[in-house]
Amino acid sequence: MAGSFFKRRVLTLLDYKTEKFIVAKNKKVGLLYRLIQLSIIGYIIGWVFVSKKGYQETDEAIQSSVITKLKGVALTNTSESGLQVWGPEDYVIPPQGEAVLFVVTNFLETPHQKLGYCAETPRVLSGHCRDDKDCEKGKMVVAGHGIMSGRCLGSDKNSTGSCEIYGWCPVERTFKPKRPTLTNAQNFTIYIKNFIKFPKFQFSKSNVLETTDDSYLKKCRYDEELHPYCPIFFLGDITRRAGYNFQDMDTLGGSIGVMIEWDCDLDKDYSNCNPQYHFTRLDISGSNKTIAKGFNFRHTRYFKNAAGESYRSLFKVYGVQFNIMVHGKAGKFSIVPTAINIASGLALMGAGTVFCDMVLLYLMKEGTAYRERKFEGSADNSAECKKEQAPLAALG
Amino acid sequence: MAGSFFKRRVLTLLDYKTEKFIVAKNKKVGLLYRLIQLSIIGYIIGWVFVSKKGYQETDEAIQSSVITKLKGVALTNTSESGLQVWGPEDYVIPPQGEAVLFVVTNFLETPHQKLGYCAETPRVLSGHCRDDKDCEKGKMVVAGHGIMSGRCLGSDKNSTGSCEIYGWCPVERTFKPKRPTLTNAQNFTIYIKNFIKFPKFQFSKSNVLETTDDSYLKKCRYDEELHPYCPIFFLGDITRRAGYNFQDMDTLGGSIGVMIEWDCDLDKDYSNCNPQYHFTRLDISGSNKTIAKGFNFRHTRYFKNAAGESYRSLFKVYGVQFNIMVHGKAGKFSIVPTAINIASGLALMGAGTVFCDMVLLYLMKEGTAYRERKFEGSADNSAECKKEQAPLAALG
Amino acid sequence: MAGSFFKRRVLTLLDYKTEKFIVAKNKKVGLLYRLIQLSIIGYIIGWVFVSKKGYQETDEAIQSSVITKLKGVALTNTSESGLQVWGPEDYVIPPQGEAVLFVVTNFLETPHQKLGYCAETPRVLSGHCRDDKDCEKGKMVVAGHGIMSGRCLGSDKNSTGSCEIYGWCPVERTFKPKRPTLTNAQNFTIYIKNFIKFPKFQFSKSNVLETTDDSYLKKCRYDEELHPYCPIFFLGDITRRAGYNFQDMDTLGGSIGVMIEWDCDLDKDYSNCNPQYHFTRLDISGSNKTIAKGFNFRHTRYFKNAAGESYRSLFKVYGVQFNIMVHGKAGKFSIVPTAINIASGLALMGAGTVFCDMVLLYLMKEGTAYRERKFEGSADNSAECKKEQAPLAALG
Repeated sequence: MAGSFFKRRVLTLLDYKTEKFIVAKNKKVGLLYRLIQLSIIGYIIGWVFVSKKGYQETDEAIQSSVITKLKGVALTNTSESGLQVWGPEDYVIPPQGEAVLFVVTNFLETPHQKLGYCAETPRVLSGHCRDDKDCEKGKMVVAGHGIMSGRCLGSDKNSTGSCEIYGWCPVERTFKPKRPTLTNAQNFTIYIKNFIKFPKFQFSKSNVLETTDDSYLKKCRYDEELHPYCPIFFLGDITRRAGYNFQDMDTLGGSIGVMIEWDCDLDKDYSNCNPQYHFTRLDISGSNKTIAKGFNFRHTRYFKNAAGESYRSLFKVYGVQFNIMVHGKAGKFSIVPTAINIASGLALMGAGTVFCDMVLLYLMKEGTAYRERKFEGSADNSAECKKEQAPLAALG
Repeated sequence: MAGSFFKRRVLTLLDYKTEKFIVAKNKKVGLLYRLIQLSIIGYIIGWVFVSKKGYQETDEAIQSSVITKLKGVALTNTSESGLQVWGPEDYVIPPQGEAVLFVVTNFLETPHQKLGYCAETPRVLSGHCRDDKDCEKGKMVVAGHGIMSGRCLGSDKNSTGSCEIYGWCPVERTFKPKRPTLTNAQNFTIYIKNFIKFPKFQFSKSNVLETTDDSYLKKCRYDEELHPYCPIFFLGDITRRAGYNFQDMDTLGGSIGVMIEWDCDLDKDYSNCNPQYHFTRLDISGSNKTIAKGFNFRHTRYFKNAAGESYRSLFKVYGVQFNIMVHGKAGKFSIVPTAINIASGLALMGAGTVFCDMVLLYLMKEGTAYRERKFEGSADNSAECKKEQAPLAALG
Repeated sequence: MAGSFFKRRVLTLLDYKTEKFIVAKNKKVGLLYRLIQLSIIGYIIGWVFVSKKGYQETDEAIQSSVITKLKGVALTNTSESGLQVWGPEDYVIPPQGEAVLFVVTNFLETPHQKLGYCAETPRVLSGHCRDDKDCEKGKMVVAGHGIMSGRCLGSDKNSTGSCEIYGWCPVERTFKPKRPTLTNAQNFTIYIKNFIKFPKFQFSKSNVLETTDDSYLKKCRYDEELHPYCPIFFLGDITRRAGYNFQDMDTLGGSIGVMIEWDCDLDKDYSNCNPQYHFTRLDISGSNKTIAKGFNFRHTRYFKNAAGESYRSLFKVYGVQFNIMVHGKAGKFSIVPTAINIASGLALMGAGTVFCDMVLLYLMKEGTAYRERKFEGSADNSAECKKEQAPLAALG
């Protein structure tokens, strides 16, 4: 008896219950509903599956390592520094081949600075003075180069002078760069090695073309059409692809972003996973092209003379900062996202039904009749109140 | 005939089918269902659309470039280094104006180190010795400064000595910093230039206020209320906004995070897209305020004397690391996310129905009656087994 | 009267409408539907809630600060540089303890380079010449070290010579490293301080174990089993955990990624939020193990002699780059994601219904009978056209 009861219970559990529908022969609403169905199906197939590859599990936690190496030599000849040869060890700052690097294209050397007393540059307004009282001893010159000694130099009745300071003397001269000193910097080449790993899929690759031709990496230069997988770039090419001439930024400096994008479909072959390069100028904003443009900084080299006294060379360098950023994602077929996306799409169709119901029941003139058929009232359900089953009812 | 058949078929496709409902005049469940409906509508409108701007397509792949520049001069006077003037080229490490930079606030110079033999510092425990046997020739001193020569220096019957080592001599002296040497570092200013780009929307902007007043950037200082778009900060202000006095970290160093957040609604005007700055101390963790606090490292300057022999100055520097991080997202109206979010919200209502059905059919005393009306049984569906249509049935 | 009308209207709004179902005693479809229900429930409980913690609000915007400090001394003895002692201030580049750092394991010094005339190295092919005409005066040697003076050195009838260049002389000699010079680099230790913050939850922590035993951080070394929360690592251990011997990369260099992962369940105790370390070699890609392997760069030290003339030491350094990356997310219980995830799961079940309906109505032999009961036709709905209610109808 208990067995029979249990069996019936299980059998009842296996009864399938399916919603009862009423057929409304209303072509307008029918057409509307089919259109909604078609657009949801189109959205699922076209957007979710084809465009967004919704059948794939994705890994966006790309691990990346970037190593850069520049090649090229420049000759400079300035009055302060004389004839100089610049190799990558000098013009790349920092020299260790990081993902963010700065290439000197212009510089001003202030050689043989020693700690001592000299006049502040006239460029610094707060260092101007008419007499010694303007130069308060021991005070810093605002935005200046040292501490005031209390003396005013070079002032007379007719003109203002500059406060004497204690600092690294002589002070750097005023310098409005007119043209670059490393004139051939655009012909330097940068070799960008990028190694990536998608840990979820145990997939790793490099942007260096895997070739058996050893000399390929010595000769090739990146070209979108001819050599899209050659990782060696002329600096001038990079700025040109970012939409600017190298000459636009070699005098005052600038900042260039190099985006390496890996969008890998691991359902396809290993050789189909290749990076795309995008170049963009980063130091110019939307509407105003002049504010805050350029890139320069100062660095020093310290020396000691035979007496053990320190002196230094101060370099103000202008140049182009390269900012190599790596983005990427990889996808591989997986049953879970596929099922979820199909099911979500089907669930979306329920929303279409709600909308069509509202149209059928409240916008069509046969609405009242359909309402009566659709809602199987309880006995005391009077016809007159059905009219007032306002829009919310359609949601139900 | 075939045409007529085909026409009938198409017409049938355009029949609209709508679920048949039964009306249960149960005010409790009705109220519950309306409440669920209202909370879903509230969630969609309030949370998805107003708060999360669900009607917008978003771009979170912000491209950013940060350039920093410090201004300020400090005067130091130590027994080892004498009177020194520090400019940004000295106290900013690295000097090239990156997004991660270190500002020296305290230092110990060990000048004129040469390779040679001297005693290990007593601070290094493994360099302590009682006689020469404790100093095994050619072995490294653990956590020490060189290779043992095999001699024990300065030991006698009563006290331990230190092993003699071959290394850069003299060894750096033990140094417990008590106060900073660059005392006015909090008055240095940092100019943070940040350029961003949202590639999807071709939108770029900078945090530098676009003004026609050229002198603005020379005079302004950031202030949340008065100058929220001035990109020049006092170092002391930054630490204060992070919740600490500059004096808390200028002796032993520290690490400050500067978050620049761009949350741009591109449906609004260009001028409404502005950054927000957040400051936080990064080298102090939740519960324990003392472990691993501070920031210091050593760097060197190498010199050669007239004879070509190397000597060096070793600097142990303490200071504040600034870590400028840029986050951001931009949104713009798009029809696809709007439609998806509305449809998902409507689809969610189906879940409310399932829940209310369970309440109605199994928790209400009229449940059995409703079940009979709701489930239109097949002929052999005996009433007695309906009771056992356990909760799962309600899901159906 | 109006009150009564309004009251009726409100009461009608509180009527609960529930779909009418028909019971199909088809065990196959019933079983199929129960299976679909069970897998959706399993997916929601197992995947969404247990595995993905869908009941939690998450914060993935981790703020992180990394400070590194190396310890260890090495002794090198090369013909060019003589006996040298290397401390962290020399072999860590840059020395400021950043998250990306390079440890020198091998080097070639070219001491006492001066600007002048000398022969290009034979290694550089474009510097080869047969007579002076091959060396065009003022032209750069491609991938070379300077500017050609116009003279060809060392050529005779039988062999090619090298063009004379103006540059830093003598030119660096050809160097094929065979073994590392800093032989004990694998015994250096790196102390990685990592501070994190989850701003949404106001939670901050450090990877440094909070212990009352002061000497713990002096003695401990990381070990997955014994000391998983000790932040001090032997370099050799790191490479070994990445799957390589330190000897595989100390001669030519390499790049190692150190991933610190914080996956914190803030519903649990503070002490349960701990980092996990993962190590991986970054400079070797999938299929080809030899292309572009290694890591080296050049840097210089500049000197001036008594006469004020510059000379320099050029260092070509090989070594291991360490790239410390921090990932993390934190989760905490919140009612909104919990409700959304449950509701989404229930909504997904609607998709199962659609699929089962199609099976029942079109694949079962009783399909026509069920269709007649399911779709309550309008009067003019002829039986013959029901057959043609093709699959799309089932979606309805």
